[in-house]
Amino acid sequence: MELSRPYLLFLGDVPDALAAKTALGIVDWRRDWCVGQWRLPGCNADTGLPEMTAAEAVAAGAKTMIIGVVNAGGKLPDHWVDSIVEAMAAGLDVAAGLHQRLGAVPAIAAAAAKYGRTLSDVRHSVERFETGKGTKRAGMRLLTVGTDCSIGKKYTALALEAGMRAAGIDARFCATGQTGVFISGRGAAIDAVVADFISGAAEWLSPETEPHVWQVVEGQGSLFHPSFAGVSLGLLHGSQPDAFVVCHEPTRTTMRNVKTPLPTIQEVIDMTVALGRLTNPAIRPVGIAINTHALGETEAKATLEAAAAAHDLPATDPVRFGVANIVDKLKAEFSL
Amino acid sequence: MELSRPYLLFLGDVPDALAAKTALGIVDWRRDWCVGQWRLPGCNADTGLPEMTAAEAVAAGAKTMIIGVVNAGGKLPDHWVDSIVEAMAAGLDVAAGLHQRLGAVPAIAAAAAKYGRTLSDVRHSVERFETGKGTKRAGMRLLTVGTDCSIGKKYTALALEAGMRAAGIDARFCATGQTGVFISGRGAAIDAVVADFISGAAEWLSPETEPHVWQVVEGQGSLFHPSFAGVSLGLLHGSQPDAFVVCHEPTRTTMRNVKTPLPTIQEVIDMTVALGRLTNPAIRPVGIAINTHALGETEAKATLEAAAAAHDLPATDPVRFGVANIVDKLKAEFSL
Repeated sequence: MELSRPYLLFLGDVPDALAAKTALGIVDWRRDWCVGQWRLPGCNADTGLPEMTAAEAVAAGAKTMIIGVVNAGGKLPDHWVDSIVEAMAAGLDVAAGLHQRLGAVPAIAAAAAKYGRTLSDVRHSVERFETGKGTKRAGMRLLTVGTDCSIGKKYTALALEAGMRAAGIDARFCATGQTGVFISGRGAAIDAVVADFISGAAEWLSPETEPHVWQVVEGQGSLFHPSFAGVSLGLLHGSQPDAFVVCHEPTRTTMRNVKTPLPTIQEVIDMTVALGRLTNPAIRPVGIAINTHALGETEAKATLEAAAAAHDLPATDPVRFGVANIVDKLKAEFSL
Repeated sequence: MELSRPYLLFLGDVPDALAAKTALGIVDWRRDWCVGQWRLPGCNADTGLPEMTAAEAVAAGAKTMIIGVVNAGGKLPDHWVDSIVEAMAAGLDVAAGLHQRLGAVPAIAAAAAKYGRTLSDVRHSVERFETGKGTKRAGMRLLTVGTDCSIGKKYTALALEAGMRAAGIDARFCATGQTGVFISGRGAAIDAVVADFISGAAEWLSPETEPHVWQVVEGQGSLFHPSFAGVSLGLLHGSQPDAFVVCHEPTRTTMRNVKTPLPTIQEVIDMTVALGRLTNPAIRPVGIAINTHALGETEAKATLEAAAAAHDLPATDPVRFGVANIVDKLKAEFSL
């Protein structure tokens, strides 16, 4: 899959920033690929990019409009269809990561045909996967896991890839979700794979490599999330990580979109080891990534120090303080 | 979904009885719906039904040919296509539970159109599922779990449904796999659901009921199987069982189609409770179902006695000795 760049990011009228995490993630990691954002009245998310209509974006050089949102169930709201048609009329291809295919909406399919535009659904991989085998592959792997969905697993993986490379490690980000695929240009949205093939897809996503290569696999969901734990477990088994980093947000009390309380970091560590050792008996935690966005500087540092002491692991907020301490731990733990 | 009966069971040239478990399961529970079996040279499975060609089956009243096999990956072998076309020419509809749709094979699609026959893919539900919510639903649920795939979870659930009904309990089998759907006439193949919706599909499969009703949910895979554990976990979370029964086969050393050793019954009990309490804190084991087919009578009884003593739970081989002891335990445990 190769999308034409640069991008116009479409945010629709999503109710909050979390719902626009696809667009925000693209801007965080590939700002120079984006010319602007297009928001509808009522939108409560903001990437900070210039506001543009589709026509203005085309004038600024944009080639593809990315539907930069996620919503539970992955359905496309009916009142966004006119904007998508308008984008194609203006000259843009359209890409999305929804469960529902863009081309399944008759008006969108008709406009794509009329204007000769390309529709890309990154959540619908053209790959055919095998069932997982569970056998050990050469190369090293790190997986980010979490106490919830939407808690920094992708961001942490991308920050670790950058930090490990800066430290001389041959690190390679493995995208497992729609935003990651937009950012890396390869990968597959593992939550859209047929259930029988989750771990098989994870094996395909982090294939055998030379022994010194570290694949940094973007985690999905949480083993403790009642909607998505099956995806998280299949990804854990298939990616057979040597190391994992736990991602957490300390002010959240219930898991995203459900009433289930968040597990503790220790519960996530224990369960990840208990389940992960099925395909890698040497699995171990190497750090904790805490999103301290809601905390002041002093409180943030105290929170990180407390987590580090409680779990005897380096703790950081990758956005605020970088990931050097986790990279140092990884180097020490694996003699890199 | 409603299939016309009676059935002709097509076994192809599968290498062993496990690969024909769909056909064998239908015969075990709905013998009177079946007129015969059709096997190709080299087939090593046998349902005991009369051998018939498609034409002979039509003469005997058959309405639908069931592709009664499973194979890793769910693909239809090319050399079965001629037989499927021949069945339609003779007058039969065709139903299968493979991942690959029957209609995706051009020759099969063409024959269905030419002869006006119906193709049914029970693994491709027409239902649209929501993501799982994790909230408690009224009614009681029992889930069968296992130390491996293909180890008796469906059979045990059907035997428990029958035994519980005989004991005056309003028990209702919930099919979650292709054979179960063929047997019950409803349900969905949960391993064919898109990964994001596994637990949501499980919630749909065992909906809210009157408080006294027991839904007996057919388990899938194993939490310890590196190919399918994600499916097992989503089913566990979505079905939120009050009670579970562990299924086991004592002579098996590695899990089906992989090199991973079998977990112990105790490991399965502990992990099922540890993970299952997320959506039902009261989850508890009520019995052990051991497939003693490979053991003599004395050894079988000794194996069951040892398992019962080791885990302080009733143990039985549902095929050989029935499930009365597990039903008794359930009645005592839940004051039924």
